Amino acid sequence: MAAAFSAVVSRLQVLSTSDHGSVVSLNLFVALLLACIVIGHLLEENRWMNESITALVIGLCTGIVILLTTGMKSSHLLVFSEDLFFIYLLPPIIFNAGFQVKKKQFFRNFMTIMLFGAIGTLVSCTIISLGVIQFFKKIGINSFDIGDYLAIGAIFAATDSVCTLQVLNQDETPLLYSLVFGEGVVNDATSVVLFNAIQSFDLNHINPRIALQFTGNFFYLFSASTLLGVLTGLLSAFIIKKLYFGRHSTDREVALMMLMAYLSYMMAELFYLSGILTVFFCGIVMSHYTWHNVTESSRVTTKHAFATLSFVAETFIFLYVGMDALDIEKWRFVSNSPGTSVAVSSVLLALVLAGRAAFVFPLSFLSNLAKKNPNERISFRQQVIIWWAGLMRGAVSMALAYNKFTSSGHTHLRDNAIMITSTITVVLFSTVVFGFLTKPLIRLLLPHPKHTSMVFSDPNAPKSVTFPLLEGGQDSEGDLMVPDIGRPSSLRSLWTTPAHTVHYYWRKFDDAFMRPVFGGRGFVPFVPGSPTERSARQL
Amino acid sequence: MAAAFSAVVSRLQVLSTSDHGSVVSLNLFVALLLACIVIGHLLEENRWMNESITALVIGLCTGIVILLTTGMKSSHLLVFSEDLFFIYLLPPIIFNAGFQVKKKQFFRNFMTIMLFGAIGTLVSCTIISLGVIQFFKKIGINSFDIGDYLAIGAIFAATDSVCTLQVLNQDETPLLYSLVFGEGVVNDATSVVLFNAIQSFDLNHINPRIALQFTGNFFYLFSASTLLGVLTGLLSAFIIKKLYFGRHSTDREVALMMLMAYLSYMMAELFYLSGILTVFFCGIVMSHYTWHNVTESSRVTTKHAFATLSFVAETFIFLYVGMDALDIEKWRFVSNSPGTSVAVSSVLLALVLAGRAAFVFPLSFLSNLAKKNPNERISFRQQVIIWWAGLMRGAVSMALAYNKFTSSGHTHLRDNAIMITSTITVVLFSTVVFGFLTKPLIRLLLPHPKHTSMVFSDPNAPKSVTFPLLEGGQDSEGDLMVPDIGRPSSLRSLWTTPAHTVHYYWRKFDDAFMRPVFGGRGFVPFVPGSPTERSARQL
Repeated sequence: MAAAFSAVVSRLQVLSTSDHGSVVSLNLFVALLLACIVIGHLLEENRWMNESITALVIGLCTGIVILLTTGMKSSHLLVFSEDLFFIYLLPPIIFNAGFQVKKKQFFRNFMTIMLFGAIGTLVSCTIISLGVIQFFKKIGINSFDIGDYLAIGAIFAATDSVCTLQVLNQDETPLLYSLVFGEGVVNDATSVVLFNAIQSFDLNHINPRIALQFTGNFFYLFSASTLLGVLTGLLSAFIIKKLYFGRHSTDREVALMMLMAYLSYMMAELFYLSGILTVFFCGIVMSHYTWHNVTESSRVTTKHAFATLSFVAETFIFLYVGMDALDIEKWRFVSNSPGTSVAVSSVLLALVLAGRAAFVFPLSFLSNLAKKNPNERISFRQQVIIWWAGLMRGAVSMALAYNKFTSSGHTHLRDNAIMITSTITVVLFSTVVFGFLTKPLIRLLLPHPKHTSMVFSDPNAPKSVTFPLLEGGQDSEGDLMVPDIGRPSSLRSLWTTPAHTVHYYWRKFDDAFMRPVFGGRGFVPFVPGSPTERSARQL
Repeated sequence: MAAAFSAVVSRLQVLSTSDHGSVVSLNLFVALLLACIVIGHLLEENRWMNESITALVIGLCTGIVILLTTGMKSSHLLVFSEDLFFIYLLPPIIFNAGFQVKKKQFFRNFMTIMLFGAIGTLVSCTIISLGVIQFFKKIGINSFDIGDYLAIGAIFAATDSVCTLQVLNQDETPLLYSLVFGEGVVNDATSVVLFNAIQSFDLNHINPRIALQFTGNFFYLFSASTLLGVLTGLLSAFIIKKLYFGRHSTDREVALMMLMAYLSYMMAELFYLSGILTVFFCGIVMSHYTWHNVTESSRVTTKHAFATLSFVAETFIFLYVGMDALDIEKWRFVSNSPGTSVAVSSVLLALVLAGRAAFVFPLSFLSNLAKKNPNERISFRQQVIIWWAGLMRGAVSMALAYNKFTSSGHTHLRDNAIMITSTITVVLFSTVVFGFLTKPLIRLLLPHPKHTSMVFSDPNAPKSVTFPLLEGGQDSEGDLMVPDIGRPSSLRSLWTTPAHTVHYYWRKFDDAFMRPVFGGRGFVPFVPGSPTERSARQL
């Protein structure tokens, strides 16, 4: 009882006790976040670094300093809490990704993204599970059953969409960004579904009925989550359009959008759906309708406030993972068998590489088969980047591993402790080493990525500065500047491939039924151009 | 142990567990916040209501519904947590108040504000303490000692600055707003200092040395807190000016400002200073320097994002107090002696009224003596409003009462339970009844408050919409539109009274030394007017 009590207290202390220790750790955390921002800014010109790596390294250094000052007793100010991560840090990141995503690019590649995110994750999970079954016994890890192996598969099938946002640039490589990031969002959801399914199904008696149930469960989860996100987004657009808050208070509009987005995530969690998918689609709908119904200042505010929240949450996560990595308690078991630990980490890294290769190349081939226009196909070089950029494992893997292999943040069994430290190793290694090499790899394989970038804006200027105050600044340039527009062949293909026909009917439907009710660009007074002309030009 | 354990768990559950109950309560909370925003918006035209009362009433109604559905077992989804309040909800409110305050108005009345906030609170605390010593024994409350009585004085001397923000309008009654709100900020700090001093000093042996120590402690705390806030604000201005983040990312600028503000609060808590004072002055300095160093979009974003955070935190607090008020456990003791409880609440309310009257009128008289210009004096009608508008007791009183009279959120002694329920009663009654009557009272006593309002902006248009995108929109109108400007007598007084001489030298100093280093209006490229001309016109 006392142990559990102190475990709970230590776990929650940074969140809500007035004891002086938690004030110290909050101070340290905020100061470190500030350091990450300033140092990340100073290192921005460096081609090898990105902000995730900066935050990770600062976190690791702080961990070392704390470890030394406390006499090797404790390096962590707080134990990694999956709830802090899933309830507070992840929603703003994913919502902002949906809010700022280039919708045309995303929906144009929707089928490919779904293929990668759903089938790809299944393939990856299967290969990793089979691999660990094969190798772990040889290494000397014997205490796991089939459920544990499948859980390991699900844990390491979860791409880190947060890190992907950092290494790929939406303006420089829009196709790759939308593919890898879109896949990451679907993949996060798939991994969480898989993981929960593995935890709840009786896996010693796999039969076709369970497999069917599992597939049905996935489709239910996917469609229900998407629907919930879309409905919440539409509701926010409707309320703001009807009540016209802007006349009275910008602050209320911003608060309403923020709270509705968060509500969509929490409602998904309430109904055991995928909050990540829900909040992502809520972000897309809000940027398509709600954002155009609010005042000028609300638009500037929401755009930057959501981006800032997401940025801070991302930095926080990496800092946190870095600081938590040195937790001495977990490494105590490992120090007795360092060989095993290194072997486990290496096997897992190799399986992550193999598992991702096993679906990126075949599924890209499949996806290319469906595309009639050669310009729309994914080239082999792009496939390599897709494979590489999705190799990073991050906080989702950490959170799932903690959920599976610890009780109340403490690790008691040797094999469990090794799994936790191996997860940390894989996360650190993949983020730092793979993340480090992604920018140079893109430069190597796509030497002139700028031919796919926006024409209007300077690529050196970051997204948020270019046209922050233009009413159409949010995605019109991006929507119009898809890589191959202007070339006759692709312009023709815009109307010949099935996806664009869907797009055409969607536009018709949107203009006829959705916009009059929910607003959106062209249905608000302050757009200078003709409403129909403008609205016809965008998704 | 088990009891303490479950107490801690239930207390923290909404913050960080993944169990389904906490997801349910988070959902309910976010939905209720949304309801408050929408209903508050619909009731905005109503002259009697304000958002605090709406949130309180919605909270109370929800509490009743939960009470009925759970079969009178529990009405609260979570127990009032002073840490949630002091660490997360209060800082954004006070920071935003400092950020948006009309600096000229505030500093012009600085001495009066200090007089009210420091001396006034001491007077009020003394009168309430003497009153409860006098009356409580007669009512039948016998278990308290001198320390408890003084603590009760400190608890009920804490004006609710959050509620003041809601009932007074900065544009309509700028003098009253700056006096009452400024007093509220200083008063909050004084109450917390008083309360902590009473908790730590041995009050059975009061001697001149302790009194001196106490006074010294107060002045140390006040000056150190102010200095810390000013230094943090200046540091943020310096960093942003030097690194010029705006060229790279608006999000970084906004994140930096937000985190620096929070860091100032947490650092004050770390050094046992008054976080409220620190973050208030940090807000003032940031709006004077830092805000002018950032990009256009950062300025719009910070202005509205801070206001939104503050608005949501305020609504949350009132909702929370409303929901917590019906906690059945606390009322169980009281139901055995309803007469005592009513008597205690009435005595406290009467003492609050008397304690405030005892310093507002004498100190206003003193303050008027120092003013040579009759237009600057506080009229008797204004004194009545100052007295009335500061009567509300809010979350600070609740938090202090919980700190004093409960252990881990549970009340075991009868007298302690009665104190908690009486605090709730006083808070609810003062907020609802006094808050309700403030707007009509102002209309009654100052029938034409608009002659003191801004000329440029429509008084019906809320603050955030009028000039949201003008570069000087933040406080230049307010600074120039002090009530009596334009009248020759007061224009003359601008240069004759000592306060204005201080202001004149400060402006000189600011232009010569501060602005070149820390930026500010006139020292950034995008101001159209001549820098010296513009900077000479404002504080």
